[in-house]
Amino acid sequence: MSWWLDACKTPSAEVKKLAQERQLQLTKPTGSLSELENTAVQLASLQDNPRPEVDRPWISIFAGDHGIIEENISAYPQAVTRQMLQNFGSGGACISVIAKEYRARLQVIDCGTVGDDYEYKGVERHCIIAGTANFSHHVAMTETQCIAAMDLGRKSVEDAVAYGASIYVAGEMGIGNTCSASAVACFLLNETAEQLTGVGTGIRAEQLTHKKNVINQALALHRDYVAQDAFKALCAVGGLEIAAMTGAYIRCAQLGLPIVVDGFITTVSALLAVRLNPAVREWMLFGHQSAEYGHHRLLEELRANPLLKLNLRLGEGSGAGAALGIIKLACSLHNNMATFTEAAVIGEKI
Amino acid sequence: MSWWLDACKTPSAEVKKLAQERQLQLTKPTGSLSELENTAVQLASLQDNPRPEVDRPWISIFAGDHGIIEENISAYPQAVTRQMLQNFGSGGACISVIAKEYRARLQVIDCGTVGDDYEYKGVERHCIIAGTANFSHHVAMTETQCIAAMDLGRKSVEDAVAYGASIYVAGEMGIGNTCSASAVACFLLNETAEQLTGVGTGIRAEQLTHKKNVINQALALHRDYVAQDAFKALCAVGGLEIAAMTGAYIRCAQLGLPIVVDGFITTVSALLAVRLNPAVREWMLFGHQSAEYGHHRLLEELRANPLLKLNLRLGEGSGAGAALGIIKLACSLHNNMATFTEAAVIGEKI
Repeated sequence: MSWWLDACKTPSAEVKKLAQERQLQLTKPTGSLSELENTAVQLASLQDNPRPEVDRPWISIFAGDHGIIEENISAYPQAVTRQMLQNFGSGGACISVIAKEYRARLQVIDCGTVGDDYEYKGVERHCIIAGTANFSHHVAMTETQCIAAMDLGRKSVEDAVAYGASIYVAGEMGIGNTCSASAVACFLLNETAEQLTGVGTGIRAEQLTHKKNVINQALALHRDYVAQDAFKALCAVGGLEIAAMTGAYIRCAQLGLPIVVDGFITTVSALLAVRLNPAVREWMLFGHQSAEYGHHRLLEELRANPLLKLNLRLGEGSGAGAALGIIKLACSLHNNMATFTEAAVIGEKI
Repeated sequence: MSWWLDACKTPSAEVKKLAQERQLQLTKPTGSLSELENTAVQLASLQDNPRPEVDRPWISIFAGDHGIIEENISAYPQAVTRQMLQNFGSGGACISVIAKEYRARLQVIDCGTVGDDYEYKGVERHCIIAGTANFSHHVAMTETQCIAAMDLGRKSVEDAVAYGASIYVAGEMGIGNTCSASAVACFLLNETAEQLTGVGTGIRAEQLTHKKNVINQALALHRDYVAQDAFKALCAVGGLEIAAMTGAYIRCAQLGLPIVVDGFITTVSALLAVRLNPAVREWMLFGHQSAEYGHHRLLEELRANPLLKLNLRLGEGSGAGAALGIIKLACSLHNNMATFTEAAVIGEKI
């Protein structure tokens, strides 16, 4: 039943070596392309292809509503989750523009939001639950609901593989979800809210203090149930979209599809995925270091150094999406630069 | 005669305001696209266009040889300058691949290199002097030679404007040119070589110590001649390509063409340009923070925060070239995201 414990694919050590050797032959001082070299080499190894590419990127956005919103921890009303879902589908959101820019396939999945039935162009509607329960008082999700959300992520990756995707980005939308993500992160890192809580979409200082109090009280409420189990932390204080992305990342590693992790919330899902199945880590590239307080701490835990540091704090997979352009460039350079021999350039130092 | 003192264009304050207002209306939390917003707003103002674009980017690579190479301060032999010129033209170099990736026009200008006559595809050959003089013993260039090099930069920008370029990148190639750039930087910032000298293409620790000694001795030799005059610092210890890029940046500001500054050596040219004509600063975007020691100090002096920090140290305009993709994305987001009204999304905080 616990498909997420199944083995991950092993990246190709042989292709990694070939890619590293090629980098040493390209017409540039040794190591001078630094992060771009590392990116190309890692991607070559993950794609089992000495000529890595991001010709068919895939972006899945997972949305969910959060009962914790009742505690007044967000700058925007809950209705914005649904409104943005519609905006993703109709092409006006940040991630829609990024997807078009990099010719990525954009999939939008509503895992469970509050409101009436609807049909939005380009949105796959599911309703595991119409928003999680308020984790100030209850577990956010039952274990069955959490698994159903993880299954949505798994299915999304299977869709991406069937499409022939070469790289996978997950993004999220859900008013209140930085609060949920911070609470999960506190459980995973054994920290209090002070270390891992930020302003999200932009709350004021006094509201931030309140948000931290809400989280700390929830940590106390759920501590015995969670008992240091990552899956239970996800059920207790997580969200449907956070669970879906956790499932998606694990499935990517099982099917051999490279991942680009986005900002704070997706990194919580990434850490959940790694705690549930450690070999998932190898399949991750990191796109962007977010401005959200606490992201840095999560990245440290994952020993990750993101490609971009543009101070974004938008969500929707926007930082990872922006990084697709740089990853694409890293591949082009790896594949298309001339070698010292081809260009008759002296490659040996004096 | 001193064309570089002529007035620069004034960026449009009106368009800047329009662009800022538009950013506030796009469907995202206020300020959440941070550096991407700033980039789009600055570019809108510089292009005098509320819908900024980088549809026709222009990249000019300036090459020159350096007499200081006689002092054993480089990891690679001087012949590499010419070999790389050929590689630029034939499409195998890093910047050639970047230019293709972002559909940029690539111009390659040899300002003066050592060797026999040649014809390389795609390379404009000039020979102001067959490499600068060894600035351990002489001024690197006479004032006439320096002006001739600045004129090559000026001409390049006029070519770019005639082409209809929307943004301008300058890059450089010249074995030994980090040594020259460091020496110029020391004069401009009143520092010793210890503060502003790095390993360039990758010299060993003992050779780095030697490189610093060579620079400090040259600073002492030329101090009276330079007497805190930026132009004379350029003549005394600069290079042909450094002078050409200085002229190019100034001409960009005079003709109203936005600049993307690259790494250590181009930033020395940028600082020279600003010292000669302070209003040039407004026309600069900064593409990349280089791994070369001392670049950070130069960026501080120019109050610049580059878009990318990928640890590159290749030269050729590669960092600025890589940033073109991010600048292009910033424009697409600015131009194509929906407003709150268009998408019927609540834009007011609770």
